[in-house]
Amino acid sequence: MTPEDGDAILRNYFAPWIQELGLAVEEVGERHATVRLPWSESLAREGGGLCGQAMMAAADTATVVAISAARGGFVPMTTVQQSTTFQRPVTGKDVLVHVRITKLGRTLAFCDITLIPDGATEPSAHATTVYTVLA
Amino acid sequence: MTPEDGDAILRNYFAPWIQELGLAVEEVGERHATVRLPWSESLAREGGGLCGQAMMAAADTATVVAISAARGGFVPMTTVQQSTTFQRPVTGKDVLVHVRITKLGRTLAFCDITLIPDGATEPSAHATTVYTVLA
Amino acid sequence: MTPEDGDAILRNYFAPWIQELGLAVEEVGERHATVRLPWSESLAREGGGLCGQAMMAAADTATVVAISAARGGFVPMTTVQQSTTFQRPVTGKDVLVHVRITKLGRTLAFCDITLIPDGATEPSAHATTVYTVLA
Amino acid sequence: MTPEDGDAILRNYFAPWIQELGLAVEEVGERHATVRLPWSESLAREGGGLCGQAMMAAADTATVVAISAARGGFVPMTTVQQSTTFQRPVTGKDVLVHVRITKLGRTLAFCDITLIPDGATEPSAHATTVYTVLA
Repeated sequence: MTPEDGDAILRNYFAPWIQELGLAVEEVGERHATVRLPWSESLAREGGGLCGQAMMAAADTATVVAISAARGGFVPMTTVQQSTTFQRPVTGKDVLVHVRITKLGRTLAFCDITLIPDGATEPSAHATTVYTVLA
Repeated sequence: MTPEDGDAILRNYFAPWIQELGLAVEEVGERHATVRLPWSESLAREGGGLCGQAMMAAADTATVVAISAARGGFVPMTTVQQSTTFQRPVTGKDVLVHVRITKLGRTLAFCDITLIPDGATEPSAHATTVYTVLA
Repeated sequence: MTPEDGDAILRNYFAPWIQELGLAVEEVGERHATVRLPWSESLAREGGGLCGQAMMAAADTATVVAISAARGGFVPMTTVQQSTTFQRPVTGKDVLVHVRITKLGRTLAFCDITLIPDGATEPSAHATTVYTVLA
Repeated sequence: MTPEDGDAILRNYFAPWIQELGLAVEEVGERHATVRLPWSESLAREGGGLCGQAMMAAADTATVVAISAARGGFVPMTTVQQSTTFQRPVTGKDVLVHVRITKLGRTLAFCDITLIPDGATEPSAHATTVYTVLA
């Protein structure tokens, strides 16, 4: 799978509301993927910071790209559990969503996701996801 | 606080992208709030089901309404942690987001959130949130 | 299943280290179970409070009792995910661990667990668990 | 702080029941710590696998060592939230608990914990913790 294949997954399988996030696949590998969440005023809450809901949504969505890449293409899957911590505010920066698959089982997949503002070294948020992979 | 006050909080403090969810406060109380997430095709992923990202976002947002109600009005706060499980698919139905505050401390608040499709008895999703309340 | 059947599960399937907790089943039902975690100095950390690790362990263990009760007897299962918040300290009191099954699927089960000191009304801790049920 | 200082923290601040785990500090650094959870039959559940409760407890306990090391010595702290996924069974092996502090704020600390059986490369479990640091 190429980043372009990843972008096609983002276009074809996600809700219109998720597509408004403008996510773009930067990199896909055997057990990882990086997706860019572009800064947008439409994602800024009162005070100017990136809303946490966009970070949770990006982590979940990027997981689908990573698992698809690991399986060689899109497969139906559903989120079982997502746990997210919010560690630092983000203002005016894209966020890079780094997904690492820590277990790809026959039916369950586990991922570790670090969200880091572009150019920064410390995470704005950190998530773990558990997915059921249906095929 | 009235449901109308809750709706004003939704309009004034959240990102435009969150406002597109069309959340509406149904009920607020001393330690709880109920917020409606209206069904919309724009929230449906491929296959027609409500996307999990909208449910996570609604749980987080409804927490702000509940804590504000408990404090008698909006106060600045930020999400520390959200944990969400996805238990049943939802198609073509509004979802009622029931928030119960289980601890309202001086700086930390803890909530339990059950998301139930309108007319159903079993939850589609369940979340817990931890917030830092800043004032 | 009776509480005595639940106690037999506690004796037969758990590690010796878990048995030292002295958990006792108070009640089992179709979709719930209540297990008592007795106060013990051996569970008190420096300062005298009940250690959080014991509450996490009790929540996990009580989930097995609840799911077994719902299935009519012990079935092999493994924890997929547990999320726990710690809300109030406990000193010198037993804790009642109330498990409610919110979804019992073919392979995945989801539970909501509230830990309340005996005689109190407010929770000391709150957990959610996701289990794979193997049979 | 040295590993010996870490071991002293384990002896002085934890419940007797936690001390039975036999945890030993292998390494401490500015933003990380590694703690060994030795294999013991007393931690094996029916079937012979290491019980998940011991892994949750070890992750929580190792977090205290890591934050103490980062602060230059033990400081009072309490767990706010712990989220754990269980990814692979462990039998007959010690488990190395690697804690990485991802944010050490004025009052809140966030950690990422990977539990890997000694000699293995893939994690048996993965956890995140949020702590309130009181001083």
